[in-house]
Amino acid sequence: MTTFPSSLASRTVSDPDVLARYAVDESLGATAPEHFEVVRARDLDDVVEVLRWAQETRTPVVPQGARSGLAGGSVALEGGVVLNLEGLDSIVEVDPLESLAVCGPGPVTADLKAAAAEAGLFYPPDPASSGFCTIGGNVATNAGGLCCVKYGVTADYVKALQVVLPGGEVIRTGHRTAKGVAGLDLTGLFVGSEGTLGVVTEVTVRLVPAPDPALTALATFDSLDAASRGIVALRLERHRPSLLELLDGPTIAAVQAIADFGFPVDCAAALIVQSDRPGHTAQDAHRYAALLTEAGATDVAVADDPQESEALLAGRRALHHALVAKGPHFIEDVCVPVGQLTALIAAGGDISARTGVEITMSGHGGDGNLHPSLFFDPREPGSRERAEAAFAELVAVALAMGGTITGEHGVGSLKSRWLPDEVGAASIARQRALKAVFDPQGILNPGRVYW
Amino acid sequence: MTTFPSSLASRTVSDPDVLARYAVDESLGATAPEHFEVVRARDLDDVVEVLRWAQETRTPVVPQGARSGLAGGSVALEGGVVLNLEGLDSIVEVDPLESLAVCGPGPVTADLKAAAAEAGLFYPPDPASSGFCTIGGNVATNAGGLCCVKYGVTADYVKALQVVLPGGEVIRTGHRTAKGVAGLDLTGLFVGSEGTLGVVTEVTVRLVPAPDPALTALATFDSLDAASRGIVALRLERHRPSLLELLDGPTIAAVQAIADFGFPVDCAAALIVQSDRPGHTAQDAHRYAALLTEAGATDVAVADDPQESEALLAGRRALHHALVAKGPHFIEDVCVPVGQLTALIAAGGDISARTGVEITMSGHGGDGNLHPSLFFDPREPGSRERAEAAFAELVAVALAMGGTITGEHGVGSLKSRWLPDEVGAASIARQRALKAVFDPQGILNPGRVYW
Repeated sequence: MTTFPSSLASRTVSDPDVLARYAVDESLGATAPEHFEVVRARDLDDVVEVLRWAQETRTPVVPQGARSGLAGGSVALEGGVVLNLEGLDSIVEVDPLESLAVCGPGPVTADLKAAAAEAGLFYPPDPASSGFCTIGGNVATNAGGLCCVKYGVTADYVKALQVVLPGGEVIRTGHRTAKGVAGLDLTGLFVGSEGTLGVVTEVTVRLVPAPDPALTALATFDSLDAASRGIVALRLERHRPSLLELLDGPTIAAVQAIADFGFPVDCAAALIVQSDRPGHTAQDAHRYAALLTEAGATDVAVADDPQESEALLAGRRALHHALVAKGPHFIEDVCVPVGQLTALIAAGGDISARTGVEITMSGHGGDGNLHPSLFFDPREPGSRERAEAAFAELVAVALAMGGTITGEHGVGSLKSRWLPDEVGAASIARQRALKAVFDPQGILNPGRVYW
Repeated sequence: MTTFPSSLASRTVSDPDVLARYAVDESLGATAPEHFEVVRARDLDDVVEVLRWAQETRTPVVPQGARSGLAGGSVALEGGVVLNLEGLDSIVEVDPLESLAVCGPGPVTADLKAAAAEAGLFYPPDPASSGFCTIGGNVATNAGGLCCVKYGVTADYVKALQVVLPGGEVIRTGHRTAKGVAGLDLTGLFVGSEGTLGVVTEVTVRLVPAPDPALTALATFDSLDAASRGIVALRLERHRPSLLELLDGPTIAAVQAIADFGFPVDCAAALIVQSDRPGHTAQDAHRYAALLTEAGATDVAVADDPQESEALLAGRRALHHALVAKGPHFIEDVCVPVGQLTALIAAGGDISARTGVEITMSGHGGDGNLHPSLFFDPREPGSRERAEAAFAELVAVALAMGGTITGEHGVGSLKSRWLPDEVGAASIARQRALKAVFDPQGILNPGRVYW
């Protein structure tokens, strides 16, 4: 590897233990390469310098935030440079009148949400990792989360970007104004491009008026069909829930295995639903509870205050720990039409029964966006491969239902083999050509997403 | 011009009077060319055939809807073909559970809104021309309208597209699912591309729960500063208005000149504000009225029922006729930060006083998106040129304020000379390169937008 420009010397990492921390993300299956460098950028100039130098030396660059990704999109590449952007973490401004905030890519999502809240406003996107993921990573993957059923995804809130292109050119996209249609929408093209087109160094996001603290209803069901009826009823409600999460039976069993969260034994599914509608959260929570009872819930609890509300979410919040405790697993991320959710879960059950791979299904039921987890035993020969094969089967099922291979995690390095199945060869060819407009030498995250 | 393929014979137009109807849009300043052809497509195959043939023969193609555009983006080109898409007007489905609708580019916007309403849902985008513009045109220009202050613009509702590319290749972009992040966002790139990248033949839009019929407050002011304080107060309200329109003094005078809409003589500005919040429209309308009084309104009227509400909007609805009655004018479309609205209007007043060009300012005050109208007398030598020069001055003022040259009408052929001033040469170069990915021979709307 060519030597870094001396101006970057203080930004590089030499300690192998520290280096190792920047090698991988949260995905299973991505492995750290043997040789790579890390630059911890501190400002725009650092990013410009890295991309100038990388273009000259044809060095692969992996833009990286907090490494909470689940698709292997920010894992180090052999012979490449990890360009970590956590240091560009300033929240430059929050402007209540223009309803916007400007920040670097580095702030943790929860910190931007808190800054907006301090100004009496709301930055809705809330990936489950919002306590440790960064805004830059959210922009790169077009992150979703628990509020999407009402508020949409990160792309719905990004107004403008500052981006450094390979070679070091700095461009601005989008606008600070409420509206603007001057030329092609480059902002939208960069959002969700997973570090393949440019490196985002500043983000302008739209803020909305603050909601009320959410109130919750939790329902359990003895059949998936009844839970599905509940989702349908809630989707058709005029006051759209701000959260609508689904846990299937195996997920509930995994959660109950680490502590008693009050779920009945052998329940087939649970739905957790929230309202944050100003002045009406209690009214909505009770209305949602009534709809879920009507749909056939065996038990429905309603939280009348934010504290109880958190208690009802406890099982959902424990989910990640429960799945980790259960054992090594791949986390899937498929999204299907809401009307196909039950069929997707049933198909998962069939695959599990046929292959012997344990599968739990949970996620953002209100969006049709589930995160199946597929378990394996690393000590057992072939177990991991069977889980991977089951994972591939599930993806194929989702696609056949008119779904997508990724609702919110991104394609990264783990799912690029399925992208052509979803979008077709013609689209892939166009995506590669679009990349070449910004990155003609292919130094940014090469081999990933649409490659 | 090469002869059309015989399969298109029944779609072409020969009557010169009919032909002339397809030559121009609603913009002033765009002129019909001497030689052009018109194809009125009836289905996907027609579009494929035209784009296959046009690519072979290197014939310029102008995709066109209802010709309600105001930027000259769908005006016929010399030696080119107008590809009119009004005939692809089916509304294929409205799916309440998945909260989406699928239609061709041809339906009139109001018809799609009505189809959504019949299913108990809401398609928010509402350009002032929604009674005669088409969805395809809305997608091409990323149309805005009166509801944007609460609901955003067309791009915020487009989920997926079917697009025919030059040469006749058909691609699909986006997804029917609630979420999806597989690959680059081609949908967003096509929305607002003003017919320069491909021809949209099917649109999938997101629908939202239906609001209540809106209630209205109308306030008049004896100073622009007071009106500006009113806008600021309303922007900071937790329950965002669903409409917030501004009329300046000269606009009000023009409206009063055609009929008495009850505006006081010599008032400096009027604000019209609406709420459509389910169950709370009256509460909000009264709250908004109180805020406007506090801001210094000289008179505030509140409509307690939808019929009165319409009456308060009558002056706004008469605006287009009033301006036409006043005389020939250019309609501008700039958007500035909301905090700069007063300064923009003051600058317009200065330009008017200095140049003698009459200027009225009105539009979507809540978004900072105004439509200044600049009047001229076609019989007076130099009058039109003076109006054009004043128009250019206003654009420069808006840009200097951090605004945009077009908030919702598009760049088309009339504003392309200013696009580099807004986005910079580097962005223009990238936009041209992106076009070449889809349209390597430059047959689609050549010379327009970023050319």
